[in-house]
This record gives sequence, structure tokens and C-alpha cells, in this order.
Amino acid sequence: VHVALGRGAEFDAIRRLLARWGDSARGIGNDTSALDVPPGHRMVASTDTSVEGVDFRREWLTPSEIGYRATAAALSDLAAAAASPLGVLLAITVPTNWREALEGVADGAGQAARAAGATVLGGDLTAVTGPGMLALNVTVLGSVPHPITRTGARVGDHVYVTGVIGGPARALRAWLDGTDPQPADRARFARPAPRIREAQWLAERGARAAIDVSDGLVADVGHIAAASGVRIAIDLGLVPRVSGVTAIDAAQSGEEYELAVIAPGGIDVSDFAAAFGIPLTDIGHVTEPASTRAGAGVETYCDGKRVDPPGGYDHFSS
Amino acid sequence: VHVALGRGAEFDAIRRLLARWGDSARGIGNDTSALDVPPGHRMVASTDTSVEGVDFRREWLTPSEIGYRATAAALSDLAAAAASPLGVLLAITVPTNWREALEGVADGAGQAARAAGATVLGGDLTAVTGPGMLALNVTVLGSVPHPITRTGARVGDHVYVTGVIGGPARALRAWLDGTDPQPADRARFARPAPRIREAQWLAERGARAAIDVSDGLVADVGHIAAASGVRIAIDLGLVPRVSGVTAIDAAQSGEEYELAVIAPGGIDVSDFAAAFGIPLTDIGHVTEPASTRAGAGVETYCDGKRVDPPGGYDHFSS
Repeated sequence: VHVALGRGAEFDAIRRLLARWGDSARGIGNDTSALDVPPGHRMVASTDTSVEGVDFRREWLTPSEIGYRATAAALSDLAAAAASPLGVLLAITVPTNWREALEGVADGAGQAARAAGATVLGGDLTAVTGPGMLALNVTVLGSVPHPITRTGARVGDHVYVTGVIGGPARALRAWLDGTDPQPADRARFARPAPRIREAQWLAERGARAAIDVSDGLVADVGHIAAASGVRIAIDLGLVPRVSGVTAIDAAQSGEEYELAVIAPGGIDVSDFAAAFGIPLTDIGHVTEPASTRAGAGVETYCDGKRVDPPGGYDHFSS
Repeated sequence: VHVALGRGAEFDAIRRLLARWGDSARGIGNDTSALDVPPGHRMVASTDTSVEGVDFRREWLTPSEIGYRATAAALSDLAAAAASPLGVLLAITVPTNWREALEGVADGAGQAARAAGATVLGGDLTAVTGPGMLALNVTVLGSVPHPITRTGARVGDHVYVTGVIGGPARALRAWLDGTDPQPADRARFARPAPRIREAQWLAERGARAAIDVSDGLVADVGHIAAASGVRIAIDLGLVPRVSGVTAIDAAQSGEEYELAVIAPGGIDVSDFAAAFGIPLTDIGHVTEPASTRAGAGVETYCDGKRVDPPGGYDHFSS
């Protein structure tokens, strides 16, 4: 635990964080935390940084939502591997103008970890003198017997997407336009739900590749196509989307943290909806292996006609 | 892998990092990386952030040294647990004025990981528009059958310290005074050596508690005393120090990344020196359990007389 807050303040800050995280912060106080990987499981790990001005703006979210969102976004990478979360490590860089919000941020991060069944294993605080941007780095550790990757898509497989797409992008658009987002859109942006159990359900039913939707659905399915060396066709008209959002906008909405999953056809989407209260939608399939004639990638269709693929989600900073 | 550099630049940056890290970056391209924990081992994890202006200044170090130092400092937490490094996750926040230095930083981080036998498992780049401070977050994963913690010190145990103390603090002092540090001091600051194998050697010989010296030797031994509920006496005159540094300065020199280890007496320090080319020095012992009369803590002696403990190392920002 590296804390450059000065002697007294250092321990005060750690104590405040401990009080927020409660029993889940068992590792804090040692520089390392130990955990056990279940027999037969592999460990999976991912790290993700949320920076003010790049990933969020202060006026959009409460401190607790900032912590929750950063942690849920990182946990979403475990979902994409169909892994069970074991632990979370939080590193927070805190400029002077964020000191008062630190407890709220830590509180939200702890909530997101607990909601996913993860323990807060440790933390690292760096106090920066003077005003600046808050940065939260979240490293997530999980385990799974056979991690799902992006490389397993095969010709004939189907493309499934969890949930309903388009809310976060519309919330972002509202904020950038200077208006308040609709509450449901705002909630999807502020407290995304990593699809942990949903991914495990799909893995049990033969899922072969997966990714969480962070760059935009078409762009992220494109990452699977590239990694698997295949071509994938998506029917944009089938993309499940919130009311009032176009298919194109939904297809490029980023930071959804829904999952795009490649699996053999025939998954029972009604069973999925009954189990999790969100839809699972078949939106396309893997058409052919990549070749010299047609490289790996995604073809998009609308009403049966081929259309140009929408661009990816470039975050609001670019 | 979250990269907010925009489409083309995103892949260029990842490609550059991959070229630097080479085969050790096997996980990049998936959002998660999988690794195997040896049977009978526990996983240990730690996260550590190095921020420009808090942990280093740009004019002091090359980009490669900045990456090396941040990574070695994080790996030092694994050494304190006597763990074997398995993997490293790097999250780099890159403002515009640091873009050109990114390859060098990544190069140095990869060197430090390889030197410790760790794989670079994955990365995360966040580009910040406009000038700002570079921040590197390094999460380290390792494994060990029985992690050494801070809680195992028992009355009668001895306090050992690896290496020779005082160089990094003197380098820092020189920079803050506007002069160039001596080359040996500078090297100790720029490329610290995590004492991985040394810790394992000591663990095999019964080490019961350990910490890496980051806040200052006396302050860090104080963390062990507090966690173990004991009182510890250190003879400052015995602290191994670089020529020209006082015992007091050595005792509060931070960011040494040497180890303070509590172990039963009788460790063969000559064997240690022969094995690793650095000294191992017995500087004190655990005197009594903490009590209502005398709480957990460190007593310092010089020439047999009790002296006030030197303060901890408060980093150069405070």
C-alpha cells in the first residue's frame, strides 16, 4: 500500500477506506494480499483505468457512482472470460480538489465489488498536491476452468448479445448537449452491470468467444472476428435497443458492458430471459473464414441489405 | 484493454507496446489474461501507482528508467511476501506531452518484469488530451505456498536487512538541491532491485515477517511491530549504509526496496552474501510483546543509548 499523504493523513485515509469497504478489505495493511484459486481453475486478470475528463466528467456522476462505474467496468472484463470474480485491487490518484470525495468513490467501488461477489484485496492511494484529475485504476482477479477468449469463433456460430443497447450513449449525448439524461439511461451509464452470471450460463451452453461491449457492438464483434480469423454478419435491425435509439446508434454505443457472445445456434433465449430478467438476442452469425479475398471483419445488414458498418465508439474525448 | 487514443492510434500504440514487450505480452489483445498458479501455492497480488511530481520528476530519469523503477517498486511487494512473480499488468495514463516517451516507459517496464521472471500479462492505456502528469499503475501477481506477512514477528526474533541503505535518499537530496547525484546513488534510485530470490532464501531459513523498505527502515519495521503486536529494538549504528550517509539518514531513507526481515537468529549472513553479492545485516531484535505499558513500536539505539526514532520518509512532495 503506497500512500503519499503524509504520516497522519495516510493512516486516516486508509482507516476511512477500511471503514467503507468493511470486511472485504482483508488485505489492506499488507502490501500484498493472498487468495486461493480453486483447484482446476486458471487465474484471469485485467486492469482498467478511469480518468476524469476521458471516461467521465465530475458533474455527471456522484463520487459513489464514479467508483461503482470504474469497478463494474473492470469486472466486465472478467464476465467476458466467463470468470468468477475473486478480488479487486484499487489504485486511486487523488488531487487536492478530490480529497473530500474520496470516501464516496471508495464506497461505490466497494459496492460494485460486493455486488459481483469480489473482495477488495488491497488499495493504493496517491495524493497529488494541487488540483487535477481523479484517476481510478481497478485491477480485477478471477478464476475459471477454461477462460473464454476472442479467438474461438467458428463458421456457423451465432452472435448473441445480452440486454438492451443504447442507453449509455444517449445519456452521454444528453450531457454533451447540456441537458439531463433520462433516468434509465443515466442509471445504465452510472451503474453498469457486469454480466458475470450471464456469461457463466452461456459458457455452460457452449459459448466459444465473447467480449464486453465497450467500444461499440460492431467494433467489439470486429475484435472477435479479427482474433478468430473469421467474417461475421450482423443484422443491425435485430440489435436489441432502447426505445427511440436507431439501430445505427445502438450498434456504435460504447461502454454498455453488455456481452457479445459467439456460440453454436440453438441457445434457449427464453430460458436466459427467465433466469436473468434481460433478453438474449441472436443478431447474426459467423459466415466464413477470413481469406485473401475477404479479410477478417464484420458485415452489417439492415432489412436484408448490406450497409456500411457504423464506426466504433471513440469515447467523448475524441 | 481500454485505450482511448482513437481508432488508428489505438492500434499503433498497442503495436508499439507489443514490439517492446515481445513475447512476454501474451495477454494483450484480450481484455483478460490467464495464468496458472502452481499447485499448493497461494496467489498474491499488489498494486502500486507511480505519479510524476509525487514519485519522480521527469528531468531526473529517462523514460525507460521511469518504467523500470515503477515496475521494480511494485515487484518489491512480492519480494516482501517471498512470492515468485508470475505476471505484471501495466496501466499507463499518458498526457499529450508524454506521448513520445511512451515507448521508452513501456520498454523499461518490460525490462524490469523480465529481470524478475514475470510476464507482462496485459496493459491499459489512457490518453489524456493536453499536458499533464504521467501516471503508471503496476499490478503484480505472484505465488508462494505460504506468503510472508507483517504479522509473524515473535519475541526473540532478529531483524535483518538486505543490502546497503541510503543511496536513493541521497540521490533525491542532490536533485532537490539542484545538483547531480553520484552515479551509484542515481542507479539505486533509477533501477531498484526487488529482492525476490533473497526473500525466498530467507523464507527457506525460517523468516517470519518481512516488509520492503519504502517509507524508511525504522518506519517500515514499525509497520511490522504494529501488525505483529510487538516491540522491536534496532541499533542504528548497525544499519548498513553507503559511505558518507549518517545512521539517522539511512534509517529514514525511503524507496530503498531492500527488505527488512524478521527471523530467528543464527541466519548465516556470509552464505547470504556469497549467494547474492550483497550483505545481510542483523540490526536488532524483537524485545517484548506490546502491552498496555508499552504499545507496539520500535525503539532505536545508537552506541548503546536509546535515541528518538527518526521520522519516516515522507516522499519529496510533502
